[in-house]
Amino acid sequence: MSAVLEGTPDKRLALVTGRAYPELAQETARFLGVDVFETTAYDFANGEMYVRFAQPVRGADVFALQCHSGDINEWIMEQLIMVDALKRASARSITVVAPFLGYSRQDKKHQGREPITARLIFDLFRTAGADRIVTVDLHASQEQGFFDGPVDHLTATPILIDYVRGSMPLENTTIVSPDAGRIKVSERWAAKLGNLPLAFIHKQRDITRPNHAEAHGIIGDVDGRDCVVVDDMIDTAGTICEAVRTLRDAGAKSVTLVATHGLFSGPAIERLRECGAREIVVTDTVPVPEEKRLPNMTVLSVAPLLAAGIRSVFEEGSVATLLEGLPEDMKARNIYA
Amino acid sequence: MSAVLEGTPDKRLALVTGRAYPELAQETARFLGVDVFETTAYDFANGEMYVRFAQPVRGADVFALQCHSGDINEWIMEQLIMVDALKRASARSITVVAPFLGYSRQDKKHQGREPITARLIFDLFRTAGADRIVTVDLHASQEQGFFDGPVDHLTATPILIDYVRGSMPLENTTIVSPDAGRIKVSERWAAKLGNLPLAFIHKQRDITRPNHAEAHGIIGDVDGRDCVVVDDMIDTAGTICEAVRTLRDAGAKSVTLVATHGLFSGPAIERLRECGAREIVVTDTVPVPEEKRLPNMTVLSVAPLLAAGIRSVFEEGSVATLLEGLPEDMKARNIYA
Amino acid sequence: MSAVLEGTPDKRLALVTGRAYPELAQETARFLGVDVFETTAYDFANGEMYVRFAQPVRGADVFALQCHSGDINEWIMEQLIMVDALKRASARSITVVAPFLGYSRQDKKHQGREPITARLIFDLFRTAGADRIVTVDLHASQEQGFFDGPVDHLTATPILIDYVRGSMPLENTTIVSPDAGRIKVSERWAAKLGNLPLAFIHKQRDITRPNHAEAHGIIGDVDGRDCVVVDDMIDTAGTICEAVRTLRDAGAKSVTLVATHGLFSGPAIERLRECGAREIVVTDTVPVPEEKRLPNMTVLSVAPLLAAGIRSVFEEGSVATLLEGLPEDMKARNIYA
Amino acid sequence: MSAVLEGTPDKRLALVTGRAYPELAQETARFLGVDVFETTAYDFANGEMYVRFAQPVRGADVFALQCHSGDINEWIMEQLIMVDALKRASARSITVVAPFLGYSRQDKKHQGREPITARLIFDLFRTAGADRIVTVDLHASQEQGFFDGPVDHLTATPILIDYVRGSMPLENTTIVSPDAGRIKVSERWAAKLGNLPLAFIHKQRDITRPNHAEAHGIIGDVDGRDCVVVDDMIDTAGTICEAVRTLRDAGAKSVTLVATHGLFSGPAIERLRECGAREIVVTDTVPVPEEKRLPNMTVLSVAPLLAAGIRSVFEEGSVATLLEGLPEDMKARNIYA
Amino acid sequence: MSAVLEGTPDKRLALVTGRAYPELAQETARFLGVDVFETTAYDFANGEMYVRFAQPVRGADVFALQCHSGDINEWIMEQLIMVDALKRASARSITVVAPFLGYSRQDKKHQGREPITARLIFDLFRTAGADRIVTVDLHASQEQGFFDGPVDHLTATPILIDYVRGSMPLENTTIVSPDAGRIKVSERWAAKLGNLPLAFIHKQRDITRPNHAEAHGIIGDVDGRDCVVVDDMIDTAGTICEAVRTLRDAGAKSVTLVATHGLFSGPAIERLRECGAREIVVTDTVPVPEEKRLPNMTVLSVAPLLAAGIRSVFEEGSVATLLEGLPEDMKARNIYA
Amino acid sequence: MSAVLEGTPDKRLALVTGRAYPELAQETARFLGVDVFETTAYDFANGEMYVRFAQPVRGADVFALQCHSGDINEWIMEQLIMVDALKRASARSITVVAPFLGYSRQDKKHQGREPITARLIFDLFRTAGADRIVTVDLHASQEQGFFDGPVDHLTATPILIDYVRGSMPLENTTIVSPDAGRIKVSERWAAKLGNLPLAFIHKQRDITRPNHAEAHGIIGDVDGRDCVVVDDMIDTAGTICEAVRTLRDAGAKSVTLVATHGLFSGPAIERLRECGAREIVVTDTVPVPEEKRLPNMTVLSVAPLLAAGIRSVFEEGSVATLLEGLPEDMKARNIYA
Repeated sequence: MSAVLEGTPDKRLALVTGRAYPELAQETARFLGVDVFETTAYDFANGEMYVRFAQPVRGADVFALQCHSGDINEWIMEQLIMVDALKRASARSITVVAPFLGYSRQDKKHQGREPITARLIFDLFRTAGADRIVTVDLHASQEQGFFDGPVDHLTATPILIDYVRGSMPLENTTIVSPDAGRIKVSERWAAKLGNLPLAFIHKQRDITRPNHAEAHGIIGDVDGRDCVVVDDMIDTAGTICEAVRTLRDAGAKSVTLVATHGLFSGPAIERLRECGAREIVVTDTVPVPEEKRLPNMTVLSVAPLLAAGIRSVFEEGSVATLLEGLPEDMKARNIYA
Repeated sequence: MSAVLEGTPDKRLALVTGRAYPELAQETARFLGVDVFETTAYDFANGEMYVRFAQPVRGADVFALQCHSGDINEWIMEQLIMVDALKRASARSITVVAPFLGYSRQDKKHQGREPITARLIFDLFRTAGADRIVTVDLHASQEQGFFDGPVDHLTATPILIDYVRGSMPLENTTIVSPDAGRIKVSERWAAKLGNLPLAFIHKQRDITRPNHAEAHGIIGDVDGRDCVVVDDMIDTAGTICEAVRTLRDAGAKSVTLVATHGLFSGPAIERLRECGAREIVVTDTVPVPEEKRLPNMTVLSVAPLLAAGIRSVFEEGSVATLLEGLPEDMKARNIYA
Repeated sequence: MSAVLEGTPDKRLALVTGRAYPELAQETARFLGVDVFETTAYDFANGEMYVRFAQPVRGADVFALQCHSGDINEWIMEQLIMVDALKRASARSITVVAPFLGYSRQDKKHQGREPITARLIFDLFRTAGADRIVTVDLHASQEQGFFDGPVDHLTATPILIDYVRGSMPLENTTIVSPDAGRIKVSERWAAKLGNLPLAFIHKQRDITRPNHAEAHGIIGDVDGRDCVVVDDMIDTAGTICEAVRTLRDAGAKSVTLVATHGLFSGPAIERLRECGAREIVVTDTVPVPEEKRLPNMTVLSVAPLLAAGIRSVFEEGSVATLLEGLPEDMKARNIYA
Repeated sequence: MSAVLEGTPDKRLALVTGRAYPELAQETARFLGVDVFETTAYDFANGEMYVRFAQPVRGADVFALQCHSGDINEWIMEQLIMVDALKRASARSITVVAPFLGYSRQDKKHQGREPITARLIFDLFRTAGADRIVTVDLHASQEQGFFDGPVDHLTATPILIDYVRGSMPLENTTIVSPDAGRIKVSERWAAKLGNLPLAFIHKQRDITRPNHAEAHGIIGDVDGRDCVVVDDMIDTAGTICEAVRTLRDAGAKSVTLVATHGLFSGPAIERLRECGAREIVVTDTVPVPEEKRLPNMTVLSVAPLLAAGIRSVFEEGSVATLLEGLPEDMKARNIYA
Repeated sequence: MSAVLEGTPDKRLALVTGRAYPELAQETARFLGVDVFETTAYDFANGEMYVRFAQPVRGADVFALQCHSGDINEWIMEQLIMVDALKRASARSITVVAPFLGYSRQDKKHQGREPITARLIFDLFRTAGADRIVTVDLHASQEQGFFDGPVDHLTATPILIDYVRGSMPLENTTIVSPDAGRIKVSERWAAKLGNLPLAFIHKQRDITRPNHAEAHGIIGDVDGRDCVVVDDMIDTAGTICEAVRTLRDAGAKSVTLVATHGLFSGPAIERLRECGAREIVVTDTVPVPEEKRLPNMTVLSVAPLLAAGIRSVFEEGSVATLLEGLPEDMKARNIYA
Repeated sequence: MSAVLEGTPDKRLALVTGRAYPELAQETARFLGVDVFETTAYDFANGEMYVRFAQPVRGADVFALQCHSGDINEWIMEQLIMVDALKRASARSITVVAPFLGYSRQDKKHQGREPITARLIFDLFRTAGADRIVTVDLHASQEQGFFDGPVDHLTATPILIDYVRGSMPLENTTIVSPDAGRIKVSERWAAKLGNLPLAFIHKQRDITRPNHAEAHGIIGDVDGRDCVVVDDMIDTAGTICEAVRTLRDAGAKSVTLVATHGLFSGPAIERLRECGAREIVVTDTVPVPEEKRLPNMTVLSVAPLLAAGIRSVFEEGSVATLLEGLPEDMKARNIYA
């Protein structure tokens, strides 16, 4: 048999992106030292989408990044179409990169005849041809079990903690959970920042005094403290802005809001503008368009995290180590600063 | 064993609908003599959708109707979520009813690294839990083979032919195909209307005279004739309006446009308004909103066709007979007249 | 075609059981008014199991009940083998009834290279041939999404609440959550029992005072109160017995422990015997063998709940209504009283 | 909801057949009291086949019978095509009836890089849409495990035993196995016929005398006996005719050959004509064309067995009882007598 | 860990062939510079086939070539068996190479209760273990969507065009489509050969004059022209020979027939011999046995096209570039010249 | 694109083991020249198991070894959990190594409503994520067909034959099969050891003398011979010890027992101790705990066979060659000597 038909396989990484937030792919590519693959994508007049990759992907390990933001159903569908095209073009492996996974809050049935849309989304990607999912801070960790294959579940916590540590003195700081269900996350924050004190907000009525009107109480000492409220996402910002007001009413010196996903839907920006928070810190797992940026808002790029995750997957290293922090050559920054 | 736990199973039909065009489901239900099931469906602030059925569907044969129109990706996703909810709620069988199937034109790869989105759509419905597809006039008949299960492929041709036969004298009529690829459909029309003469439009340049500028030629006699142009869909209406002009230039006495799917996307309405057609006849496989209705436009309800198809499926009769015409109790009408 | 080969199908319910806790199947059958199917099951000398059903199951809707208790892996495997035999014997549908689903706490990866065994268990039953799962009070509701098909997720809360309401005066009662993560369940209890006051135990150190030794604090007023501590399961009883002591130290008049699943593993019984609880109330989703029964322990039969769920599934009624309470003819009782 | 859309489902049996041996389907239909469904089937000029069913099969329980004989690959493919057409035509269930399952001898790998074609055949039918397999006397019982679903494994033994019992006196009869691997089958025959004596043929060389030329020995007493040689199939008849000669050399008074499947391939008929057997008894699981019929050959119809099996499946009775004998209204006869 | 168990994987190409047309595999191997793998394949007496590969395929990228010609069902089955053996022998990837894909014309349902055999064939290969399909000029491009994986759809058009360009002067040439449905293919030919004039044959009756007897008309100027009739396949040659006669009656100076697949079934050769064509040009995607070769027939080897496609797949290059023409080292020739 | 993201993939072998018999994995690793991967595995108090791999397996070819012995269901479940964890941790391939495959005797239905547990076990491993199975001496070769993928079916025969050849003079030896169904295995032994004479035990009653009490007869000459009885496994040792007595009664000089799998369940050791065999030779496909070891028992390590098989799989060599004997660097020894 001739030499040309034996030999050593090479492996190539290809990063492709949908149209929801191509800047994130470009920034991720920059950290990886590659270019985003050229892709043609547009809408037909009746709303159907068209996708085609301009460069060969045969034999490549392809990472298909899309942000599930804005026209979320459109972008999920576009990503599914991308995966189908990659499968039919003989990609060696296809990794769906969804920094914020749409529908991840619909992870169970509260009543009869409801869907479990989060499971459906994982199944749709599997059917289209995805081999693996890379995502950041799922709403419930159980959702890793919704995929029949590996899920590399990254967390933006080290990025956010690094920023907080560098941007404010911590000796007077208390970590606050906006409701009872998130105390464990706050505990991890408090521990990593040097055993800071904790507090959390609870709805007074149901706890100890039946038949009283609802009120918001605070467990822990916040009077005169710099409070850092931690959550996984800020969507319409109703609960979290109520928390700010409650903390300020209780004498907090300042309130900083921190979350991985800054969806900022509907009345969110208006509420945040008026709630009296010192600073709002999120990452760009979903893009924050210019009209939504407040003067006291910091958006940290999630690109170095994605790049580190993709590199670990491609080079078959450990993704688990990223849970502790990013490698030295991949550090986050405030992308809109 | 106690009698209560043996016995005869009953069967129940449930018709549910998405939000794209609920009026079509209601009209279909009217022909079936049933009510559409109550459903709760809305968008969350970040664009995710929620669906829940208010009535039990356990053990029912459910038909989930959605029109792939307008925000087409949103409505496809909503239908997928509906199917997931039905599966988890123990429906006995789930039939996806998609009068116009989105993406059915993306049925093959023209170049490398393209998706075959029509196949993907069928696969997504299969994954969500669909047992069967009911649809009308697919772009290519081969697409029935994209589903791993039964597809009941209905045609609106009998509805359209009935209307044409009743709305204009036919002795001076010629059936026209807007391009060479659709002649077989026109042949069927001509045969059913009593062996009417045929004609078709072709692009002159490529056929017989190289190096000439492109022009549109007509094969067949149209001078002084009432022309009926037949196609499967009118999307942006560019080709079909060009056909009208060509026919009129060639002396046609009148030009009537007939198609199953009236998408009327982008510049379609403007073009149709100005093209000089006598009448435009479509069905409502996609809704025609008020602002798109022209005075000379007729929209025939596809509800009796869907109702007849659903009834045949539920009662396990033959759907094939519907290819010849609708049963007496299910006749179409101009829904916006 | 001859009459004998047309006609009306009948439907039959068959209830089969594994060897882990056949008494529960018999009690369930009694509520359903049927007999448990005869089954041959034994171990070969090398530990392999043999199962065979003595009566035909062809065409029947079979419910295969097994308790995941004791030699839990053995009984899960036996139930898988039962499902395989039912599939090959042409059962019309196969419903796995697992009152306590083994491994349901292993529902996510805490670290890299861990399994998600709860998802695996659902997949194994799917592969063996299960069409549906009936279970009670899963550790996390998200696990319904681990199955690719319907899960009828029952809750024993109405049974437990009925008992508590009937067994003690409530005017002096406070509902207590043993840790912060279970407050929502306690809220539901408090609301159903007439807006009772709530309290919960928290680990003091991490909340507000760093660098202090760990201690258990109580939020809410328990001094002089009859406390009812609510949880989903009692396994080794470490946390819950610590809660009893904390409550008693804080002046509680009495402490009652309530949980759906009484696993009572390892040192549980010794701890419970000594912790000073007034009463321990569980259901028999896992059997409580005689040597584990304490004088102040009440074990409520889950059979009427299972029977009501099975009947709803078989008769295609709504299982959702069972979330509110059992039908009149199916009421629980203390099975070891 | 209107009455017409609720009600009781009916069930219908449809028997369809391929072209390999339609007479068997007709005979089976006669026992069932039904007509074989009309089917159009022919070959295109290039050898591709076309199949279409002339009557609706929607909602029917369809039994698709084909004999894997003659152009065996052609008929297997035809049956696969039939199943595909039934699936797409919404049959309620599809049962493949293959009285002799082609390739069932290729059930394991003897060497590296061999296929396991028997498993492949089961998988192909599964993929095409088969829900169940009905077959007769598989080469190895393990093959039931090759199908991911129910296999109703019938046996022709009762038919053959009935015939032997009625056609010859048994007081002087010995049951003979043609090789050591089939002794268990012979044991069952001997027991059912009244504890008849047994014997079997073995290849002398490997058993007790190394380095001797191969010879055939007989275990058991056959001198002056009426020998009945029992096997699962007669293919090229080499081994079995050698057995006849060996028995006759050892003084057997007569030799009768009995097998379920009479393939009679290649030199079989010539060998059988000359081997000196008194009678050759088979069933028609594969057709025996006129030119292969010898004067001393009896072909028993397998139709009553198939009919009884199909009726049990359709009426959801027990197929296991057929292992003992056929019902009174379904008795086999010599079809070519 | 010892060095011997780490290291660099190698990749190896293995080309195996069925018995339908092994010469094509050998010729393809020659272009690739490899040997065809040794394979044992034969028929058992009852028509079952046996296949075994004589050399290890573990870890190899195997291309399994078979021509779907002659006993087409037999050869498809043999190829399925080959794929099963490769899967069980741990081939790294399995590519089915089917230069002419059998049943590709049965790609849709024309009536109720028909199969979609083309989809079935793709599914059967998927089930047997095929990862990818390489084929040439499918009857309908939509069929790429029938496979759940990559299909490398090659075209013989560059080979045929090269030959035509080299074998006749083109200044007097017209490209002719034998029916209206193939005009687009003819357009591509005309464009590639230098904007040659086009013509096509149509059936007169249905086009413009109802109630007239059927006749064949020609659109475009063919009087005194050298006509090249282009189609995808020549099966029984009825339509295409009728086209030749029609063109000659209309004054064509010569008629050349060109098609990718020369099936030449049934009366084809007799018709072609007598139809008066100047030359018949096909490729050997199916073998043309000696008795079917006419003096004026040219059969171009498809081996270089297959070799180029296989090489691109193996070396993970772009197959799309082959749509434009073959690489320099792989040029077709008249294999029977 | 930067060099860091192209390049040559490496491949790594990882050997992991369950807790049933870790010594076998360590011994196998020693032959491979690697270390067993560190794994954390323990039982929770209620019997659920926990597994985690301490070292990264991403991209590795992992071989997960477990012995199906002792608490067989527990260990099968543990191996399933291991496979799930490996799949979710992105192993490149997962090979289940089960030297003795549990439930392999339950490979068919003997009666209606039995499972085919051997098929189920293969399916469970497939579902959990296994790509391949490596096992030794399955009870029936047909079971290779139960897995939808490659099975590397090793045999310990060369190891056992080597030992016998080296441990006793063979000139006076006869190979004995303990029942008629195992003669083929004995033939292979006799041939490999130099055409030794054969004999076998049969149950007298059913063979030639009906109505007599059951007795054990011997075919072949054993008087004064050294008999070697060969079987695939010794479970409760009833049949094989009966064979020893029968042989000794018939004048055998000595009796040696040889089998691959020494399960030694229930009364086996007591029976073996008293049966009068000269020596009992097995391998350690299941561990033989100290209390089961008899003075005349030899347990040969199967580790070199597993190591050779694993190495062939990893290095993509031929496993088939191992059927003839082990490579020079991998020779078995008596592990408990």
